[in-house]
Formats: sequence, C-alpha cells, structure tokens
Amino acid sequence: LRRGYPEVIYGEGKTAGQVADIIRAMEAYGSNILATRIDAEKAEMIMASVPGMVYHSEARMLTLGKEPVNRQSRGVIQVLCAGSSDVPVAEEAAVTAEFMGNRVKRFFDVGVAGLHRLLSLWEELQEASVYIVVAGMEGALPSVVGGLVERPVIAVPTSVGYGANFNGLAALLGMLNTCAPGVSVVNIDNGFGAGYLAAIINQNSVVETVSVSQNTTSDQ
Amino acid sequence: LRRGYPEVIYGEGKTAGQVADIIRAMEAYGSNILATRIDAEKAEMIMASVPGMVYHSEARMLTLGKEPVNRQSRGVIQVLCAGSSDVPVAEEAAVTAEFMGNRVKRFFDVGVAGLHRLLSLWEELQEASVYIVVAGMEGALPSVVGGLVERPVIAVPTSVGYGANFNGLAALLGMLNTCAPGVSVVNIDNGFGAGYLAAIINQNSVVETVSVSQNTTSDQ
Amino acid sequence: LRRGYPEVIYGEGKTAGQVADIIRAMEAYGSNILATRIDAEKAEMIMASVPGMVYHSEARMLTLGKEPVNRQSRGVIQVLCAGSSDVPVAEEAAVTAEFMGNRVKRFFDVGVAGLHRLLSLWEELQEASVYIVVAGMEGALPSVVGGLVERPVIAVPTSVGYGANFNGLAALLGMLNTCAPGVSVVNIDNGFGAGYLAAIINQNSVVETVSVSQNTTSDQ
Amino acid sequence: LRRGYPEVIYGEGKTAGQVADIIRAMEAYGSNILATRIDAEKAEMIMASVPGMVYHSEARMLTLGKEPVNRQSRGVIQVLCAGSSDVPVAEEAAVTAEFMGNRVKRFFDVGVAGLHRLLSLWEELQEASVYIVVAGMEGALPSVVGGLVERPVIAVPTSVGYGANFNGLAALLGMLNTCAPGVSVVNIDNGFGAGYLAAIINQNSVVETVSVSQNTTSDQ
Amino acid sequence: LRRGYPEVIYGEGKTAGQVADIIRAMEAYGSNILATRIDAEKAEMIMASVPGMVYHSEARMLTLGKEPVNRQSRGVIQVLCAGSSDVPVAEEAAVTAEFMGNRVKRFFDVGVAGLHRLLSLWEELQEASVYIVVAGMEGALPSVVGGLVERPVIAVPTSVGYGANFNGLAALLGMLNTCAPGVSVVNIDNGFGAGYLAAIINQNSVVETVSVSQNTTSDQ
Amino acid sequence: LRRGYPEVIYGEGKTAGQVADIIRAMEAYGSNILATRIDAEKAEMIMASVPGMVYHSEARMLTLGKEPVNRQSRGVIQVLCAGSSDVPVAEEAAVTAEFMGNRVKRFFDVGVAGLHRLLSLWEELQEASVYIVVAGMEGALPSVVGGLVERPVIAVPTSVGYGANFNGLAALLGMLNTCAPGVSVVNIDNGFGAGYLAAIINQNSVVETVSVSQNTTSDQ
Amino acid sequence: LRRGYPEVIYGEGKTAGQVADIIRAMEAYGSNILATRIDAEKAEMIMASVPGMVYHSEARMLTLGKEPVNRQSRGVIQVLCAGSSDVPVAEEAAVTAEFMGNRVKRFFDVGVAGLHRLLSLWEELQEASVYIVVAGMEGALPSVVGGLVERPVIAVPTSVGYGANFNGLAALLGMLNTCAPGVSVVNIDNGFGAGYLAAIINQNSVVETVSVSQNTTSDQ
Amino acid sequence: LRRGYPEVIYGEGKTAGQVADIIRAMEAYGSNILATRIDAEKAEMIMASVPGMVYHSEARMLTLGKEPVNRQSRGVIQVLCAGSSDVPVAEEAAVTAEFMGNRVKRFFDVGVAGLHRLLSLWEELQEASVYIVVAGMEGALPSVVGGLVERPVIAVPTSVGYGANFNGLAALLGMLNTCAPGVSVVNIDNGFGAGYLAAIINQNSVVETVSVSQNTTSDQ
Ligand SMILES: Nc1ncnc2c1ncn2[C@@H]1O[C@H](COP(=O)(O)O)[C@@H](O)[C@H]1O
Ligand SMILES: Nc1ncnc2c1ncn2[C@@H]1O[C@H](COP(=O)(O)O)[C@@H](O)[C@H]1O
Ligand SMILES: Nc1ncnc2c1ncn2[C@@H]1O[C@H](COP(=O)(O)O)[C@@H](O)[C@H]1O
Ligand SMILES: Nc1ncnc2c1ncn2[C@@H]1O[C@H](COP(=O)(O)O)[C@@H](O)[C@H]1O
Ligand SMILES: [Mg+2]
Ligand SMILES: [Mg+2]
Ligand SMILES: [Mg+2]
Ligand SMILES: [Mg+2]
Ligand SMILES: [Mg+2]
Ligand SMILES: [Mg+2]
Ligand SMILES: [Mg+2]
Ligand SMILES: [Mg+2]
Repeated sequence: LRRGYPEVIYGEGKTAGQVADIIRAMEAYGSNILATRIDAEKAEMIMASVPGMVYHSEARMLTLGKEPVNRQSRGVIQVLCAGSSDVPVAEEAAVTAEFMGNRVKRFFDVGVAGLHRLLSLWEELQEASVYIVVAGMEGALPSVVGGLVERPVIAVPTSVGYGANFNGLAALLGMLNTCAPGVSVVNIDNGFGAGYLAAIINQNSVVETVSVSQNTTSDQ
Repeated sequence: LRRGYPEVIYGEGKTAGQVADIIRAMEAYGSNILATRIDAEKAEMIMASVPGMVYHSEARMLTLGKEPVNRQSRGVIQVLCAGSSDVPVAEEAAVTAEFMGNRVKRFFDVGVAGLHRLLSLWEELQEASVYIVVAGMEGALPSVVGGLVERPVIAVPTSVGYGANFNGLAALLGMLNTCAPGVSVVNIDNGFGAGYLAAIINQNSVVETVSVSQNTTSDQ
Repeated sequence: LRRGYPEVIYGEGKTAGQVADIIRAMEAYGSNILATRIDAEKAEMIMASVPGMVYHSEARMLTLGKEPVNRQSRGVIQVLCAGSSDVPVAEEAAVTAEFMGNRVKRFFDVGVAGLHRLLSLWEELQEASVYIVVAGMEGALPSVVGGLVERPVIAVPTSVGYGANFNGLAALLGMLNTCAPGVSVVNIDNGFGAGYLAAIINQNSVVETVSVSQNTTSDQ
Repeated sequence: LRRGYPEVIYGEGKTAGQVADIIRAMEAYGSNILATRIDAEKAEMIMASVPGMVYHSEARMLTLGKEPVNRQSRGVIQVLCAGSSDVPVAEEAAVTAEFMGNRVKRFFDVGVAGLHRLLSLWEELQEASVYIVVAGMEGALPSVVGGLVERPVIAVPTSVGYGANFNGLAALLGMLNTCAPGVSVVNIDNGFGAGYLAAIINQNSVVETVSVSQNTTSDQ
Repeated sequence: LRRGYPEVIYGEGKTAGQVADIIRAMEAYGSNILATRIDAEKAEMIMASVPGMVYHSEARMLTLGKEPVNRQSRGVIQVLCAGSSDVPVAEEAAVTAEFMGNRVKRFFDVGVAGLHRLLSLWEELQEASVYIVVAGMEGALPSVVGGLVERPVIAVPTSVGYGANFNGLAALLGMLNTCAPGVSVVNIDNGFGAGYLAAIINQNSVVETVSVSQNTTSDQ
Repeated sequence: LRRGYPEVIYGEGKTAGQVADIIRAMEAYGSNILATRIDAEKAEMIMASVPGMVYHSEARMLTLGKEPVNRQSRGVIQVLCAGSSDVPVAEEAAVTAEFMGNRVKRFFDVGVAGLHRLLSLWEELQEASVYIVVAGMEGALPSVVGGLVERPVIAVPTSVGYGANFNGLAALLGMLNTCAPGVSVVNIDNGFGAGYLAAIINQNSVVETVSVSQNTTSDQ
Repeated sequence: LRRGYPEVIYGEGKTAGQVADIIRAMEAYGSNILATRIDAEKAEMIMASVPGMVYHSEARMLTLGKEPVNRQSRGVIQVLCAGSSDVPVAEEAAVTAEFMGNRVKRFFDVGVAGLHRLLSLWEELQEASVYIVVAGMEGALPSVVGGLVERPVIAVPTSVGYGANFNGLAALLGMLNTCAPGVSVVNIDNGFGAGYLAAIINQNSVVETVSVSQNTTSDQ
Repeated sequence: LRRGYPEVIYGEGKTAGQVADIIRAMEAYGSNILATRIDAEKAEMIMASVPGMVYHSEARMLTLGKEPVNRQSRGVIQVLCAGSSDVPVAEEAAVTAEFMGNRVKRFFDVGVAGLHRLLSLWEELQEASVYIVVAGMEGALPSVVGGLVERPVIAVPTSVGYGANFNGLAALLGMLNTCAPGVSVVNIDNGFGAGYLAAIINQNSVVETVSVSQNTTSDQ
C-alpha cells in the first residue's frame, strides 16, 4: 500500500504455496506483511516455509515483521461485537488496527438484545477516537452505539445468521439505513477494511499532533 | 371477520363511492366497521354519505358503531414508534386495537439513536401485556424493546426511509433477524394487522381473567 | 433470558466442545438449558461430556434440567406443519414450547393441497390458545389456518423447496402478505423463536389464571 | 395470431390514436379484434373513431366483431378470484376466453381467509374443464383450488397488495412453488394470457368433440 | 393424488430408508407409485428393499406398478429441450407423462442458437396436443416454440447456467414474460409438475374422445 | 468524447434551459452534438434557443452539425427490434450510429413469437458487419439472431413489459445468459450505448479498408 | 444531536408548515438548525414564516443561525463528484460539513470516464484530511480516488442512472466491494450523513490540535 | 459453430467420459475443438483417451488441432484483468481468442486501486483493435479503460469477491452502468464468450485486410 503501511494479502482461494510465494516476494522489499482469511491448516504450512510469521487464530490472520510502534501516541480504537459468532470478523479488524500501530480495546458480546451490558460501558465508550462495530443477524448494534457516542463509527455487517438474513444482507441494509449520524459501512465480513480505515482515521489526529509535539509533552 | 370483531375494509385503491357502498352493505348486518387507508378527502365524501362515522386523521381510518367496551378488564397494549414519519402506521395499529376494545398506551418518537428516551420509560414498559413496535429505516427498535421486556412484541416495519431502504425491505429483514426472542413480524406498513393481533393476544388473558374476576378485584 | 425461562444456545457453527463449555458455564447458575441446531453426532459428543442432557433427534435439540411443570394450568399450543420435510422445524418449535412448560399438540402433514385432512380437524383446532403453523414451498398453510381459527397464529416459513423458492423466500413473502388477520411471522426455519413466542403468549393467560386460582390479590 | 383466433393489441402505453390506427389496419383483414389495458377515457376516444367496438369496463378491454360462437360445444372455463381488487385481472381473463368462444363461469371473492365460501362451491367446481385462479397478496388460492379439483389450473398472480408483496412478486413465487400438482403460472396481472391459454386447452376437447358431434349427442 | 393417478414421492433430502418406508406404506393401497429426485445409489438401495420398481436413470426416477395403459387413445405430448444439460429435467417430465398413460415424443437438443434443428421439425411439431418445453440459460425456447405451434405450451425453466443465471431465475423470468400467447410456466427444474399437467391437459381430450371412440375411428 | 466523435448530452432530468446552455458551450468548440432523452416539448424549447438543431422524434434525440460523412466506406449496421414499443430505443441506437457516419438498416417488429418474419430476412441479415438487437419482455431476440449470423451482436434489453419483467430485468438476464456466442449486452434502454459501440466496431474495418482502398477495389 | 452540533430535520414528506413548526420549537433551545430535502417552493414558504434562514438551492437545504467558526483550525474536507446530476447530493454533503464549521473544497464533474481531469488534481488531492466521493451509475470514482490518496474516503452512491442501476443499487454495491482500502459507504443519496461523518472525522484532529496548541498537558 | 471456427464444449457438470465422447464425435468432422471449465484431473483423464489435446491449466481449457494461423494478419486483442484471482477468466478469454487465430497481449494485475500501473501502459493500450477487460469485486476497471481508449471494450465481470459482491452481481451491475461509451458486457465469468466476441470483432478487420495483404505490407 503506502509508506509505513503493511502489504496485505487476501488469502481466500489461494493455496498455502501461493500465499507463501507472495509473502517471500514482498519480504524482499522489507515490508510489514499481513495475510487475511488463512485457516489454521494453511497457516501452519505457510509458517513452515516462511520463518518469523505470527498466526492470530481467531482473526484467521498471519502477520510478519511488525516493527515496534509507539502506541502511546494515538487515540484508542474500540472494537465492539454483538455475538460470539461475530468474533472472527471483529478480531480481523482488531488485529489489523493493532498491526498498523494502534491501541485497540475489545468489547465482545454486547448485542442489543441484552442492552444492559452495553449501557454499563457507557463511560468507557466515550474514551475512544473511533469505533468499529461488528454485528450479524439484524445488525442493530451500530445504530445503538452511534446514538451513544460522538466519534466516527465504522459498521461491519457479518454473514452470521440464517434464513431472511441472506448471508449478511439484512445486517448490511440495516446499517446503511441507520438513523444515527456518524456511521458508515464496509462490506459484509470485511474486518480488515474496517481495521484499516479506523487506523487511518486515528492516524489523522496523530499527524496534527506531531507538528505540535515538538514543543509539548502531550502523551496523546 | 368473527363474532364481536369488526368488519374491515382496505380502502387503498377504492373510490369513496365504493367504500361507502361496502359500508352500507355491512351496516345492514349491524357490524362494527373499520376502514383503513382513507385519506382526508375521501373520508369527507364517505362521511357525507354514511352518517355516524368517526375519522381518525393520523391513522387515516374511519370507524363506525364502536359499542361501549369495558376497558378495565384487559391488559394494556403499548404502541411504540421510532420517528415521527412512522406515526400514521403506529396510529393505525393503536386505533385498531382501541376499536377492538383494548386500552392502548402510545410512546412515539423513541428511536434507538436517542436511547435515553426509551430507557427512561423502562419501568412503565414492564406494565404492558403486549407491545406493538413500529419502525422504518433500519428497524432496530423491536430488537431493543424485545431485550427490555418479557411479553410478546409485534414488530411493524414501515416504508419510511430512502435508498438502500428499498421501501421498507431493510426494516423488514432487520426485524425478521432479530436476536431478541419473543418478537414476530407483520407486513411493511401493516398497522392494522399488528393492532388486530395484539387485540387477540390481549383477549386471551381476558378470557382467562374473566372467569376469575368474579371473585377477585385484580385490576389487571 | 429471564427468570424462569431457559438459557438458549444456538448450536450452528459451534463445535461440540464449544457448546459443552457454554453449557457447563450456564449450569453453574442452575439454569434450565436448551441448545438448538445440534446434529446427532455433535449431540453424542456433548452428552458424553455433560451428563443429564436429553437429545430430541427430530428437533435437533438438547435440553437440560427441565423442572416439573404443571401443564394443566395453561392453554394448549397447537403446532401444525404442511409436509414431512417441515417436521424438524415444527419439532424445534414444539420442544421449545414444551420445555418452557406448555402443553403442545402436534398436527403434522396437513398441507393445503390435501385440504380435507385440515378440515377434518376443524373442531379440535378451536381448542388452542395459540397456533404455530410451519410450512415451506408456497407457505399457504398459515393463511388457511388463520381463516379457520380466532386465536393468534405464528407463521414459520421453512427453507423446504427448490427453484423459485429461493431457500424459503417464497414461503416467507407469502406469510407476510397473508390476507388472514391474526397472523405474524418469524424468520425462515426459526422454530425456536416461534416456540418461545407461543410460550410467552400462552404464559400471559396462565399467569393471570394461576395467581388467581389461588384466590389472592396479586397485582400481576 | 392464427386462424379463427382474434388479433390482439396491448393498449398500455399506446395513445388512443395509435390503437385506433392499428385496429383499422387489422379490420381490413376481417379479423376479430381484442385490445387490452384500455382505460375508460381512451376507450371512448377509440370507439368514437372505430364504430362497432364493445367496451368491457371492468376488464378494461375493447372487442370488435365477435362472430357468433356455438358455446354449447365446449367445456366450461371457471374463473375464480380471491378479492375484489383482483376483479379487473379476472375479468380480462374471462372476457378473453368468452371472446374466443368459450363458456365462462365466474366465482369472485372466494379467498382462502374465508374458506367456507370456496368449500361451499366444491360440487360446482368439479364441473369445469379448466380453471383460471387469480389472486394477489400471498397468492394461496391456486394451491387450495388445485387441491380440490382434478383439471388444469392456470394461476394468475396480481400486483394487488403492498409492502413485502413487491408488486406481485410474493403471489408469483407462491404460485410457482405450489405443492398442488396440475398448476402452472402466467405473468403477474396477465389475465389475457390466462384466458387465451384456457381457451386453447378447452379447444383441445372441442376439436375432438367437433368431428364427433355430428354423430353423437355428447353434452360435454 | 386422485383416482387413477399415481402417488408421488419427492425424494430430495429423504434417505433411501425413508423413501422405501413411504413406498411400502403406499403399496398397501395398491397405488401406482412414482418417486422423483432419486440418484443412482439411493435407487439401488430402495430397489433392494422394494421389489418390482423400475429405475429411470436420466430422469432420476423410480416407478412401481404401471398398469397397462392404452396409449392409442390420447394425443401425443411432445417434450423439447434446449441443451444436453437440460435432459434430466426433460426426462422427469417425459417419464411422468408416460407413467400417467400418455404417448410422449422427445426432441432434445433443439436450442434456439441452432434454430435450423427446430425449424426442420416444424411439421412434426404440429401433431402434438400439448408441449413441454425445457430450457436453462436464457430460457428462450418456449417463446420460439410458442410462436410455431397452436396448442398449449408448458415451459420448464432449468437451473442450468451460471453467473447472471442465478440458478434458473433468468430462464424463469424469461418464460414468464414470453410474448407468445399460450405459454404457462412451472417452477425451476419442475419436470414432474410439467409432466403431470401435460397429462391432465391431454386427459381432457381423452375423456371426450373415449366416449366417442366407440363409434368413430378418430385417429386423434 | 474523442476526435471526430460527437459530444453527447444525457437529457433525462435536465431542463430545456440546462440542455441549451450545455449545447451552446460545446458549440464553441465546433463539436458535433447529440442529445438523448429529449421529449418533444423540451426539444421545441431547445431548438428555439439553439438554431440549426434537428429533432428525431421517435428516437427522442436532438443532433447538431452533422458534417457530411462518406457512408460508402463502411459496412452496414443492422438494427432489429422485437415489438413496436421497443422502437424508441432502437431509433436511439440507429440515429446515434448514423450520426457517427454509418449506414444503418432497420428491421423493426421481427419478434420471436412470429419467427417467419425474421426468417424471411435470413439472406439480407448476412450482409451486415454488426447487429444491434433490441427487445423487451423476455428478450429472446438476440439469442435467435445470434444463432443466424456470424458477426458481432449488441443486445439491448428494454424496459418494455410488466409484472415479472421488473422494468427490463427479465430481458437483461435473458440476454446475458444467451447460449449464442458473439453476443454482448448494454444497459436496459441504452440505445445510445449500442449505437456508439456499433459505430466503433464498424469503424474498425473502415480504418483497415481505407489504407487499402487506394490500390484495390474491395466493395466492402 | 449533541453539544455544538446542529439540530437536523429530514424534510422529505413533511409539509412546509410541519417543518416550520419543528424549526420554531428547536429555535427555542438556541440550536443551530439544518433542514434537508427542501425544494425551492417549500423553502420559500418556510422562510416566510421563520425569519433568518438561508436557502442553499443546489443542496436543497435550509440553515439557521450558523455561529462564526474559526475555519483555520481544521483540515480541509474535499468533496468530489462524478457527474453534474450528482451535484445536489454532493452539495448536501458540502453544505452540511461547512455548516458544522469545516473548510470544504469542491471538485465536481471528475468522473472516471474522463480520468485526465481527476489525475490533473493529484497534487491538490493530497492536501485533504478526509474525502467525500459522490457517484451514481457504476459508482467507480471512490475506488479510483481511494487508490490515489491516503486519508479516509467516504463514498456516497447516488440514485443517478437508469435500467440496471436499480435506483442506486449498482453504485452502492460497487462502493461496498471496492478493492481500495480506506473507503466506507453511506446510504444512497445520503449527502447529509457523509458531510456529518466527515465533520466528526475532521473534528478529531482539531480537538487534538487545539487543546495542544495552548501548551498544556491534556491527557486527551 | 461456423466455417473456420472451433467446436466448443462446456465442460462444467460433464464427466471426463462424456467430454471425451463428444470430442471424438466432433473429431470425425475434422473440426478444431475447444473445451472449457475442465479441471486438471478431468483434463488428464480426457487427454489419456483422446490423443493430441493441449491443456491450458490456468484457463482450465483443452484444445485440439489448432491449425497454423497467420497471426500477422490481424489487429491485437488486449486482455486486461484487475487482480490475480481474475486470471482464470482472463486466460479463458485469451486462450479462446488465440485459438481462433488472434494475436493476444495480456496485462494482468492492473486494478484501479493502483492506477499508476494502468496509466504507465497508456501508450501501449492505444495499439489494440479490441479490449477484453476482466474484473471482480466492484468491477470498475472497464469504466476506467473505456475512458482511456477508443476501440471496443468487452467487459467481463467475475465472481471474485465476497459479501455484498453476491457472486459477481456487483461487478456485473457496475459494468452495465458504465458511463464510458464503447463498453458492452458478457455474463459473469464468461471468458469464453468475451474471447469469441473479440475474435469476431477483430475478424472484421482481417477480412478486409486479407484480400489486401497479398500486395501490401500492412503490419496491422
Ligand atoms: N479480508 C479482506 N477483505 C477485503 N479486502 C482484503 C482483505 N484482505 C486483503 N484485502 C485486500 O486485498 C488486496 C490483496 O488482494 P490479493 O492481491 O488478491 O491478495 C489488498 O490490497 C487488500 O486491500
Ligand atoms: N434456532 C434458533 N433460531 C434463532 N435464534 C436462536 C436459535 N437458537 C438460539 N437462538 C438465540 O440465540 C441466542 C444464543 O446465541 P449464541 O450466544 O450464539 O448461542 C439465544 O439467546 C437465542 O435467543
Ligand atoms: N394484457 C396483455 N398481457 C400480455 N400480453 C398481451 C396483453 N395484451 C396483448 N398481449 C400480447 O401483445 C401482442 C400485441 O402487442 P402489440 O403489438 O404491442 O400490440 C399480442 O400478440 C398479444 O400476444
Ligand atoms: N465457458 C463457457 N461459457 C459460456 N458458454 C460456453 C462456455 N463454453 C462453451 N460454451 C457454449 O456452450 C455450447 C456448448 O454447450 P454443450 O453442448 O453443453 O457442451 C457452445 O456452443 C458454446 O457456445
Ligand atoms: Mg453518534
Ligand atoms: Mg423480550
Ligand atoms: Mg384468524
Ligand atoms: Mg389438482
Ligand atoms: Mg402458440
Ligand atoms: Mg452468432
Ligand atoms: Mg487510499
Ligand atoms: Mg472508450
């Protein structure tokens, strides 16, 4: 992608050998590398042929070469998800954002049918600079979160559900029609896209701050 | 329909003359009569030719011959709606239920993007025996209400919205995929159907209670 | 969920180990437990590691700890289904309702193409307090039942069919557009949701009756 | 079209002048002529410029030159429809079949939500040689009729309905997925197509009978 | 189904054991039996446990007990299909019609992209009393056949195709929108339904002819 | 667009004033100009304020400044359409191609339901270098034409039809799924796009021929 | 909405009187007010009854009470759109962002079919802190912009187009499936939502910078 | 197909034995033969039984008997694709065109998110006589290419993507709605169709050139 950002491989439909080949080619350029949609079996084969990779099993991702990042210097990205089946997508988002140098806080299993869990987090929620809200089925969580917070919400519909869910269509349409302002949507199951976007939104503030940090000691 | 229940006319696409003719024919049998989807202009013409009808302008309904009903003897039906554009459908539901002899309580404009309004009603919400929850756009309100209460929730999607709303499809799919148990769904904009169903659910308890109310003073 | 109601696990996409872990965690709280979408093989593995569970093979459900319920004290829930392929969904509804303490009566294989079977049940049908009507293909059964009875009908479309059925879409749309009042709809194949809703509708009356038949002044 | 059959004009989107021109051109060949989708105003203008046409207002059709047909010599086509809003489509079918020389019997307003009306016709229904069954909303009527009779059923979905009806899609899908054998489907609102097809199915028998009626007295 | 017609089993999703059980139960009543959607492996298992069944491998059907039928006494049903992948559906239609006592003539591989094949059949096509036209992909064949012949055409869309075919939707919509009158449509891949309907349309004429064939020599 | 090609204005949703302004701005550069989707009333207003424009009423197009083109030097583009309602789209294609300097031959009203008309043109059809085939309803014509000819076929679905036509979707899907090779598709009602593409395909040959025609007598 | 942000009214489907009433009620609280989807005629009526409002005719918006904002202190929001028909949506976004205190730069008419226009802006594009990219038809512009820039891109599909555009569905799906990371999507025609989101993303940086430029040790 | 063109077999859903049988039958007529959708395993089995076939593994195609073609004599067909997952479809197109005697130039991995790669090819792109542009996901590449070149563009959507891609629907709709003139579309994943069409467009010029190439040295 661009200076300082990782190279990304979409693993779906690629063999372990193909992914390994791409990684080795990218490695030559010294890039940080991130591969998505890699199941455990494929991961093992790739790691056997490319040393130094880390496997994030819930996120189904492989990462390579994360250089130390000063995580103190940015706002926090909060990743919320509705149910336990949404966790893989939420983790894809969280690991992506972390790998791009951001502090990430996870709140999983805070679906709208048990609102008290979400409401008990109200104060903590106000601390983030950007939100990633992951939900399947009816996809109502981003609307509710969007009503509780004042910063940007990135909504990620998942394909979790059945019947009239139509593989995530219900959640997608729900999120696009949210009546809470400040919410935008990425593709169904696109945790990577949400993590990446949250990172560059969060990055924004950093850039501003940088010109300033020369004469202050802000820990932001 | 059946003994004690009103005869119903679906006014959409019928002329004032046609509706008036049907009403007069029904009147002969002494039925209570209810006509839906009647705009103000059509209502005026019908009322001019059939004396004794009442027009409910927000609900766009005409009613005739409501006999006195002992409203004390049943649970309360609560009708909630998300936004002001959903009011006509919510009113169609409320007037139908009232016309069938039920006590109805309205909570309009309690959409999920301003959750505090809904939450401030929490205690009052626990008092109903059945809920009608009307929402357009993303249709998230029934999920949230379903999570807060323990009695049956009838969800009514409305065609309010634009773009990826596809005339109520987004709200409909959202409601069908709710993760809150105890929720079922009627057709888009079908306030009448929701009011009718709420009435026969509420009726259920009455029947039970009636045989009992002879030796207690339960105000339920 | 709530006091007196079972904890519910959606088994689809969870491994036997994951389901068993969740059950053991819930068990600690002494809850009744119900798990849906559990095939025979998975069920065997779970039962091997959690003693005391009962497997309902047609319903593909596991239940644990059902306390004795006085089934006399409530109305009857009738579960009807159109064809033999709809039985698993109908059983999911029936077992859920039974597990929540309701008397359930099953009428399977009463599809509209052989109307005489359904009509021969006419008198018996009048005895229920709520109906669950399960159908795939064109999903016409709830409309017909809705026309024959006066109590609430919960319609459950199934994904049974092929071609222009689009995995249950045809049945779903048919049921949403029913011209019989008193019918509402849950998600395609959502037997659990229908059983749960029927239980709380039926509960309505029970609560009234029960607290009263003891000759008290409960304000419930 | 073919020998003995009428020429047909689809009036939708054509001006009165255009329709009149086409009619006059066809008239030159001495054909029987039938025009569909002609509203009252347009009809008046056409009749003013082409003498001898008959307007069928409910069917929204114009016909010209119907030669005497020996209606005795064929089976009866029965046209059923569910609700009063379906009548225009049912009439389009009925007038088409009559204009092609068939005896037609109408049973309007026999929808499935009031099954008794349909059932009371059972004996009379057995007398037809082919059925045209017109329904909007959930489109369940052809399934029910198909289960009651043994001759071919032509199902005509109408665009009557709202919300999840999607302009007739719900009825169309329902009819295509019917579990009653012996049913086939034409396009939404295509009364003409159904009437035409019923005529050539009925014609089938006629052809047989005709060659025969010279030396038998078959009343079929 | 009805007097003289076969009992029919839809084999999809049923085990060999389930199908065999149903067959044995039906056999008790002495019915002719027909089972569809039976693959070769399942067929072998069923035949091993129910003696006397015949397997039609291309049609994927099992039949039992076909009584001798006097095939001379009816019109011919012609079954046309577009491509070699449509043959299983076409055979399902053809075997069904034959099993119900009809003479059937097959014209396979007469798709519209090689029109000359179809046109070379023109004279022979005029001899049928009803047509079953099976096509996938764009489903244009029934329109073309409908334009060439004067008897009823039953169009059967198949799920053959890929991409924007959407599993037969393209062919289905094409057939429903045909501009050739005299065409109606059954569900995608519903060869059985088409065969059954063709049989009862053809039956129509038979009934007429039969009473007559005693004193004429009609060759129809 | 590019050197030698006209500037194009899409008139839909623009006022006469807006179109006239755009035309005058373009005129400054000396371009040939073509405006589509201009109804008669709007055309009159534009022509009143921009002198020299020609209105093509059936095509609903305005053109300005067509320089003389040597039509001899190219192949012929044939434009076929199925029914009279498709003519406006077919004319949009034809006028566009002519305005870009091509010889165009029209064959309107050659739909597949009356195949003989199309077949009688067989020899003449072989003379074109590219075909534009316009059809609504089931959109079968391009498949049939594609099977009869050996040069490129540009298929144009129209929104002509009703019901399950879904505003041209049926025709579009049919054309995309054609089993005739050599066919590609443009957007519903996009006569302009088809005319433009046909022109640049035809242009291809011209370029070749031109460099050559100086020393040969090729009649192409 | 929240402290410092404007109150927003969605004008679609509300009468001038209703909008004016809402505005006056809001005015009582001293809020800045913004109303969308107000056509010229309605605007005039509202302005006649509520003094001090400003009408933005291309954006179809009314605003009231914008307090002076120090625009120097934030990044720039760039609003790009593909064609002239997309301008109203783009203006809705731009005016919203400006009204919320942001500097906005517009690049209209930079669609992908004339790529040179967009490419000539390359350097200028690098200066924004967030992008709003508005496009109808195939909606390709956000993908291309996303590939050229490194900051967040908010994609707004419009309903501009016809045929297979299906009222913006084509553009919406295109944007959701973008292969450029850093892009998220709002509802079709939702210029307001995009402007609002861009403002709170841009706000992010401002807040940081402001609190810092005062030489403090804010822990934000 | 036609003189000089190959016979084509669609391999999907056919067994190796069936394909081999068809090939041997065709071979008898001395045709060039091309089979698509043949995976490696099936290919091996076919090649074992039909000698002389060549397997193109990326294109998943088998070809037989390509006679020497004078590739000098035609324009060049350029095949572009967006991502590495689109290569199989692009190769199907390229091999088809080559097998039909055309010079083909491949530019793979030139997606719009990395526009510089495509732009660096600008000059080379101007040299083709026809383009095949293959893309999945949002399918934006044909619009961009269409804006850069002046010859016909054949757009091929692929099913590459996930979520709101709906198996290629997003790319298909995007391409149909392209605002670049000169673009037409074939079915999702239909590389063969695109290659065939490109060949007959390119053929156009050839025919002209051939008669000439005997006395000139045109390198076109
Ligand atoms: N899970 C994901 N969802 C969406 N896009 C992704 C995902 N993972 C990788 N990508 C994108 O896919 C591109 C790489 O695709 P490829 O060349 O096929 O490996 C990267 O540039 C990413 O932008
Ligand atoms: N078959 C089912 N259909 C719909 N919802 C279900 C089903 N089974 C369980 N649930 C719901 O799913 C929730 C549990 O989901 P989970 O936490 O993923 O196990 C429960 O609270 C139930 O409301
Ligand atoms: N209501 C109708 N629905 C469907 N097809 C019709 C209808 N009326 C006429 N047609 C067909 O349309 C053809 C005439 O179309 P046109 O040439 O446009 O008038 C006739 O041959 C009929 O087959
Ligand atoms: N990959 C492909 N996509 C679309 N059409 C194809 C493809 N391969 C072959 N065909 C067409 O399918 C026809 C052969 O189909 P079949 O008779 O089933 O082998 C040929 O005439 C080709 O036009
Ligand atoms: Mg918010
Ligand atoms: Mg609840
Ligand atoms: Mg009822
Ligand atoms: Mg029948
Ligand atoms: Mg015909
Ligand atoms: Mg061809
Ligand atoms: Mg970018
Ligand atoms: Mg171009």
